[in-house]
Amino acid sequence: MRDYSGQKDIMENIKEYMKGVGQAARAASRIMAQADTALKNRALTHIAAALQNQSAQLLAANAKDVAAARANGLDEASIDRLTLTDKTVHAMADGLLQIAQLPDLIGSISDLNFRPSGIQVGKMRVPLGVIGIIYESRPNVTADAAGLCLKSGNAAILRGGSEAIHSNQAIAACVHAGLAAAGLPETAVQVVATTDRAAVGELITMNEYVDVIVPRGGKSLIARITDEATVPVIKHLDGICHVYIDDEADIDKAIRIADNAKTHRYGVCNAMETLLVSMSVAAKVLPPLCKIYLDKGVELRGDAASCALIPEMTLATIEDWSTEYLAPILSVKIVAGLDEAIDHISIYSSQHTDSIVTENYTRAMRFLREVDSSSVMVNASTRFADGFEYGLGAEIGISTDKIHARGPVGLEGLTSQKYIVLGSGQIRV
Amino acid sequence: MRDYSGQKDIMENIKEYMKGVGQAARAASRIMAQADTALKNRALTHIAAALQNQSAQLLAANAKDVAAARANGLDEASIDRLTLTDKTVHAMADGLLQIAQLPDLIGSISDLNFRPSGIQVGKMRVPLGVIGIIYESRPNVTADAAGLCLKSGNAAILRGGSEAIHSNQAIAACVHAGLAAAGLPETAVQVVATTDRAAVGELITMNEYVDVIVPRGGKSLIARITDEATVPVIKHLDGICHVYIDDEADIDKAIRIADNAKTHRYGVCNAMETLLVSMSVAAKVLPPLCKIYLDKGVELRGDAASCALIPEMTLATIEDWSTEYLAPILSVKIVAGLDEAIDHISIYSSQHTDSIVTENYTRAMRFLREVDSSSVMVNASTRFADGFEYGLGAEIGISTDKIHARGPVGLEGLTSQKYIVLGSGQIRV
Repeated sequence: MRDYSGQKDIMENIKEYMKGVGQAARAASRIMAQADTALKNRALTHIAAALQNQSAQLLAANAKDVAAARANGLDEASIDRLTLTDKTVHAMADGLLQIAQLPDLIGSISDLNFRPSGIQVGKMRVPLGVIGIIYESRPNVTADAAGLCLKSGNAAILRGGSEAIHSNQAIAACVHAGLAAAGLPETAVQVVATTDRAAVGELITMNEYVDVIVPRGGKSLIARITDEATVPVIKHLDGICHVYIDDEADIDKAIRIADNAKTHRYGVCNAMETLLVSMSVAAKVLPPLCKIYLDKGVELRGDAASCALIPEMTLATIEDWSTEYLAPILSVKIVAGLDEAIDHISIYSSQHTDSIVTENYTRAMRFLREVDSSSVMVNASTRFADGFEYGLGAEIGISTDKIHARGPVGLEGLTSQKYIVLGSGQIRV
Repeated sequence: MRDYSGQKDIMENIKEYMKGVGQAARAASRIMAQADTALKNRALTHIAAALQNQSAQLLAANAKDVAAARANGLDEASIDRLTLTDKTVHAMADGLLQIAQLPDLIGSISDLNFRPSGIQVGKMRVPLGVIGIIYESRPNVTADAAGLCLKSGNAAILRGGSEAIHSNQAIAACVHAGLAAAGLPETAVQVVATTDRAAVGELITMNEYVDVIVPRGGKSLIARITDEATVPVIKHLDGICHVYIDDEADIDKAIRIADNAKTHRYGVCNAMETLLVSMSVAAKVLPPLCKIYLDKGVELRGDAASCALIPEMTLATIEDWSTEYLAPILSVKIVAGLDEAIDHISIYSSQHTDSIVTENYTRAMRFLREVDSSSVMVNASTRFADGFEYGLGAEIGISTDKIHARGPVGLEGLTSQKYIVLGSGQIRV
């Protein structure tokens, strides 16, 4: 395990400290890139065992964080995210065992074809190198992110929330024990030992040592990192997701999907925030659907036409169309048809996930082509936008970027491809 | 064609002007994303015809730029890059016809598989949106970049060098004529009408309107853009390429490859800048190889061991190992073997292209795995690192980044993938 005894001195020179972390990560990344599948899986299995075996210590460390959070007046939702239980420790360990089961992408070669010059050209999948992950209160991210980076052959620098520092370091101790047991360098996963925010500023500008930053947290954290980072960022901004109920929607499917997309869970990025309904079916679909919402305590904010149909609805303001509620609130708009729906989505969607409900082939195809979001769906709940549901096995986040990785980011998103050329003495003529 | 008559007023308000360019590009990008293959190919064919038909006007516009460049005392190499001839105009037109022949990647769906929940999940290839391209003196980039962006369904904002403004606008006129003839918006390809450098500052920070920046030019241009851009950049930095001649190299292949990699062309990014030779074969390979170099006028700078073998060699300094000469100069180092070669490359390579010459299977495989460069080769000249040679059909540049696109960037590098979900009423349970 790393020695954190010098923490006070460390704090006095964050820049030097972070440089050391970066250099160690870069060196470890070269070893991790060459580590074979069995070695990486052995480390994952050892880390999972360590988490299980040291469950009592983890919960004790976590209790310190929770007590401090309460003393500092942190809100209940944050304390809830911060708190570890036997169940969450078990889930962390289980997640790592699942990652061990996933195929190892590193070293795989694709599209190896002969060219007219006689050389063979293909692509080999390789790790990105060093991944910096900046996250907020959930300490389980420490284990998840470490596992994903490890399996994809990367070194990781983890910077969790200051409120979770004891929990994160206790989890890091298990990660280091597992790496050591497998004969891999402990510096392959480093948890930043200082809670000073200056460490984040260093991490996101150390282009020499860090290849990509993955921020996980609220909008303000991500906005700050995007503004200040010089290292490339794979980011997740808002999830303002839409369901559009088309003229030719199957009404039963429409109600089931629109209900599920909003009410299955409120505080998640793939929950629907705005419902669009084609005017020709609004009178048929909105009354029964809104009854379901109102029975579940969902506040409804609609345009004038929707309000005319549903007396309990209040008039939406222009801000509502661009708000990610993450709460039992839904905005509703009646549109003339597909074109207006796509126009609305192109203006207000955060390009996370949007879904159409329709039985019409041509409109389904148009929606798939024309909506520019990371996930575009036909006749399915937006709640499916998720790495596990998509079969990625695990995810480090959902990217709302277009560059590099888009949508749920699994192991593949943490890798790159290099060209390989196999020749037998060829030269350019 | 766009109206540039208000250019004086435009110059007075670069910010407003660039915002207008950005908004027009964003609007055009939505139309381009839906344009079908035939329409895009028709535009490419019309642009090619316009370039051929207006060859005289192009050369006249170019002559103005060349005269101004001479008057301003631009160096001969830059004037050479700036000058258009009948042949280069023909090559531009031909390049566009070749792009028309390439397969259209947009809308292609891959990996569409059923998941246990009953949904089908796949990926659809989509354009990035708006691509900003910043380049220096070669005016043919205007046609190449326009063609690649057009075929990949993107809108483009092109900012060429101020010394090529008349040439670039004459080429842009052909591009606009071709787009219009195909019924596509002329704003799909905009050439920035001002030579004010502030326009570049705007372009690389208009995250709302621009999805990616591709700089093409010298190191200082790229360094400035990387530093100041908030829009993601696909960049090409140095090409410090290595050839390593292993103990078990076929000596004939080694000499042929090392000769070609250095002397086929000197001023290109995929030329070898440092030759590494295993000590066990140095005495055999270096004398005949260095004779070839010296006969061709290549200056040789070596470590002490190489200098001891080759009297004409001067002692290399530490700077030589990290210098991209782009000239008939070569640095040479004798290493103990593969490990030292890989270590040297990991420190000094610019991660562009590195090649090993060996008949040994295990060392070839190790080199392929362990060298972290965008192209890694066995028994082939580094000069093959090129979009055409790799079969990409055309390239917008060679990326030395790891994120998004690595190595030669063709049409695929200008696209992204979104997830599509095909359901039949599924909800999350």
